[in-house]
Amino acid sequence: MSVSFTVERGCPETKARRGHLETRHGGVETPAFMPVGTQGTVKVMTPEELRDVGAQIVLSNTYHLMLRPGADLIARAGGLHRFMHWEGPILTDSGGFQVFSLGHLRQVTPEGVIFRSHLDGSIHRLTPQQAMAVQEALGSDIAMCLDQCVAYPASGEEFARAVELTTRWAEICQKAHSRPDQALFGIIQGGTSADLRRRSCEEIVGLDFPGYAIGGLSVGEPKELLFEMLAVLEPLLPADRPRYLMGVGSPDLLLGAIAMGVDLFDCVLPTRMARNGTVLTSTGRLVVRNAHYAEDFSPLEPGCGCYACRHYTRAYIRHLLKAGEILGVRLTTIHNLYFTLSLLDRARQAIAAGTFARFSREFLSVYEAGERARKKEAMAVGGE
Amino acid sequence: MSVSFTVERGCPETKARRGHLETRHGGVETPAFMPVGTQGTVKVMTPEELRDVGAQIVLSNTYHLMLRPGADLIARAGGLHRFMHWEGPILTDSGGFQVFSLGHLRQVTPEGVIFRSHLDGSIHRLTPQQAMAVQEALGSDIAMCLDQCVAYPASGEEFARAVELTTRWAEICQKAHSRPDQALFGIIQGGTSADLRRRSCEEIVGLDFPGYAIGGLSVGEPKELLFEMLAVLEPLLPADRPRYLMGVGSPDLLLGAIAMGVDLFDCVLPTRMARNGTVLTSTGRLVVRNAHYAEDFSPLEPGCGCYACRHYTRAYIRHLLKAGEILGVRLTTIHNLYFTLSLLDRARQAIAAGTFARFSREFLSVYEAGERARKKEAMAVGGE
Repeated sequence: MSVSFTVERGCPETKARRGHLETRHGGVETPAFMPVGTQGTVKVMTPEELRDVGAQIVLSNTYHLMLRPGADLIARAGGLHRFMHWEGPILTDSGGFQVFSLGHLRQVTPEGVIFRSHLDGSIHRLTPQQAMAVQEALGSDIAMCLDQCVAYPASGEEFARAVELTTRWAEICQKAHSRPDQALFGIIQGGTSADLRRRSCEEIVGLDFPGYAIGGLSVGEPKELLFEMLAVLEPLLPADRPRYLMGVGSPDLLLGAIAMGVDLFDCVLPTRMARNGTVLTSTGRLVVRNAHYAEDFSPLEPGCGCYACRHYTRAYIRHLLKAGEILGVRLTTIHNLYFTLSLLDRARQAIAAGTFARFSREFLSVYEAGERARKKEAMAVGGE
Repeated sequence: MSVSFTVERGCPETKARRGHLETRHGGVETPAFMPVGTQGTVKVMTPEELRDVGAQIVLSNTYHLMLRPGADLIARAGGLHRFMHWEGPILTDSGGFQVFSLGHLRQVTPEGVIFRSHLDGSIHRLTPQQAMAVQEALGSDIAMCLDQCVAYPASGEEFARAVELTTRWAEICQKAHSRPDQALFGIIQGGTSADLRRRSCEEIVGLDFPGYAIGGLSVGEPKELLFEMLAVLEPLLPADRPRYLMGVGSPDLLLGAIAMGVDLFDCVLPTRMARNGTVLTSTGRLVVRNAHYAEDFSPLEPGCGCYACRHYTRAYIRHLLKAGEILGVRLTTIHNLYFTLSLLDRARQAIAAGTFARFSREFLSVYEAGERARKKEAMAVGGE
């Protein structure tokens, strides 16, 4: 098998798992967070900097790369790893999520999706077979099945149709997939319906994939519904396969989902937030762009070990952001990825030590108290 | 004295000098090129990356920093070195060049310049006294006198008036300057008139500064006139003081000016060109943004030892630039600074070995042949 997964230790009070995922480009200690490298680069970062902040595996987007520079060009360059100079594991998505986000620019048929490129309006098709061909050309370590993701809220009928199509496409993907050194993960849909989630899970797990993703969550639904769906799925997912919750990256959802047995995550939140001048700290978010920090000569987060916090002040980083200097977003990106990846590292250590439940409780109580205070203050001064 | 300068070796065939400039933040082997950090950061780069590409000293712009974030704020942060985390030598300009570039937004009086900020239109004054106060607050190792730079072409009368004002301001700056750990360099003006250059040089050298800058060149005049002015000044400048040619950074002008005895240079050319997707190579400029390089899997310059050339292809860097990814301009900036700083390093070695004239001739013959071929090709295909 192209990847192997071992669960090394469970948690006495929660469903959290400490595991190891081995790929042909190295291992991943789980639970793990995957920074997103949409266009063949994790925005702003070099691969060496990614390693420095603790990244073990990155996600890349099939949709963007197939349009520009094209999967064939990347194949001729020796594959995505060599093209982008990242020698660690890479997971590629199927392109489905982005295509479905195109709204009126796409049309779904039982065979696949016809869509217009957001770059030049040219017409393209994405079928399950093509999603496999493109990801095989890119040469990622883990490929994803083409699925249909429905935005929340939607009717029960829409969710049911998406489950049906997702299963049909998963079968086609599995048959079409031919690269022996690449793993193919299945994706479970079903929106916020426990019944549909159960049905999708049974069908996809019935196909026997080396790993399973939970798609269609964190797309606008209340947090409680997300956790409800994870609770439904947890006992149905095979314990010996990695579980990947797509599109989740905020500290509360990460810790909550780890407690429900999730092993892998990806999200643009830490990097996108950084480019908007907001940083993550253990006491909640901090909008370093704010005038409030103009003469604050302390680091983004006192005690933080990241490159930005070791050498620069809030005042300097704010100056860079206000002046439009690229070093500003470099420093906030480094900090936010370091913060998120360190949180996962601490979670792994806590699971191994049997103290995850307490760690999670204590971390979130400080984080959420800070967030509440920040929101109250922002409201008092009329927003940020 | 706040800086000390020793000329270690001359060149048998040219006026090139191999020297060492010592400041309280470390030494600078000369001739040296200073990357420009306009807003308290050399665009796109960290200080560690600057060291990696061979930077010894950086230039920062008084005009930009006095407006944003303000010199007082930087003083409270512990000075510019600490604020921007660059512990090597810093030279600040006087702000004059930028203020004079504002055109109709400024008014010159014998006491100084009144101008409107390019950021918010607010009115400011820059007098010789203030240029000193601001640079002392920033805490640079080398400060520059406020001078009047006139754009080429201009009338002899305009150039003469600028020489007069520049000398008067230099006297005021020298009296006003009080920081003992900071050196103050004088600036010679005079446009493209040999007589005015001689006069300005005699007056400024008569004031006895620890270093002399040549301003008002590389502002649009033909290359031959620039070299003619350097030939006029060379015998008049004291041999034991560093000579700084402002605003020069292209390989041909750098090598030509080194041969005329210049020790220091600064220019935005390598970094600005990089952000426009053009890189410097030993065979001339290469517009890596061009479609021509879409499937070129060779490095920017084969054999180059910079980080970008060791790990990435032209095809990948072009992809990043086309996709608007910041890593693209990071890689071209690293390459262009490495190229320029390596050229200076090779020039220093050649001077020390007594082979500078041959080195310069050989380098420029390959570089200029490449430039001619590139221009011919660009014209054949109808421009770049």
